[in-house]
Amino acid sequence: MTGWTLPQPMQRALKLAEASAAAGEVPVGAVITRGGEVIAEAHNTPRETCDPTAHAEILAIRRAAETLGQERLTTCELWVTLEPCAMCAGAIVHARLAKVYYAASDPKGGGVEHGARVFEQEQCLHRPEVYAGIGEAKAAELLRAFFRERR
Amino acid sequence: MTGWTLPQPMQRALKLAEASAAAGEVPVGAVITRGGEVIAEAHNTPRETCDPTAHAEILAIRRAAETLGQERLTTCELWVTLEPCAMCAGAIVHARLAKVYYAASDPKGGGVEHGARVFEQEQCLHRPEVYAGIGEAKAAELLRAFFRERR
Repeated sequence: MTGWTLPQPMQRALKLAEASAAAGEVPVGAVITRGGEVIAEAHNTPRETCDPTAHAEILAIRRAAETLGQERLTTCELWVTLEPCAMCAGAIVHARLAKVYYAASDPKGGGVEHGARVFEQEQCLHRPEVYAGIGEAKAAELLRAFFRERR
Repeated sequence: MTGWTLPQPMQRALKLAEASAAAGEVPVGAVITRGGEVIAEAHNTPRETCDPTAHAEILAIRRAAETLGQERLTTCELWVTLEPCAMCAGAIVHARLAKVYYAASDPKGGGVEHGARVFEQEQCLHRPEVYAGIGEAKAAELLRAFFRERR
């Protein structure tokens, strides 16, 4: 039996999530690609940077926009290890990201398939294609291990 | 007849919204106070900084957290000229802001009393006290004038 190989950007996002945990931050990693090429990446840093908005997705979006010199990322894809929260889902809309791939879903904090369901709102100006569950076992285990250690 | 005087922080937020329009950005201004003292302020800058997350609220929250050297703004209040969007409402939750005062409501883009209704979600970890409509006529007129000029 041959296991399915995770797409490279999600493998990278999971590595970033591991680095996040090692730095004492909630293990979430994000990568932004354009035409298959990684143009930005980040992991959570709210503690390190004293910035409550420093989720992996927000940082990756800001870096990608800076790299491209434009506010909108219409030709880009976001790969993230956890279902984006309402804040990050809102940022995805503002950035006009074409596709979002995420690993674990997040009933407690997610804003895509839970809670605020940002992309499902009638007023939502841009709805990315969303693919969930890519690498979810590994992403969820990283989160479980992180919170287990801290209890 | 004497008109009601707007609280000082909202007057300042409206000044910031005017500065935003003058810079070619959507006229929204935000101020964060603690114990009546302004500790951070900002207006929208997505265009200038090529940053889709650069809403007035996000920038003010990041500045306040940096100023206080802490991720959480539990003893602070946010004053903003427009109903926060889902992204900004999510950031308000993460920052644990005690109170939110906003001027104009935003049926098209708001995420507090419209759309995602972030604070009303069952999963929402922190619900600020919210006061709406403080200075709404002035805030709404700034927005109308801005978009009228650009049509």
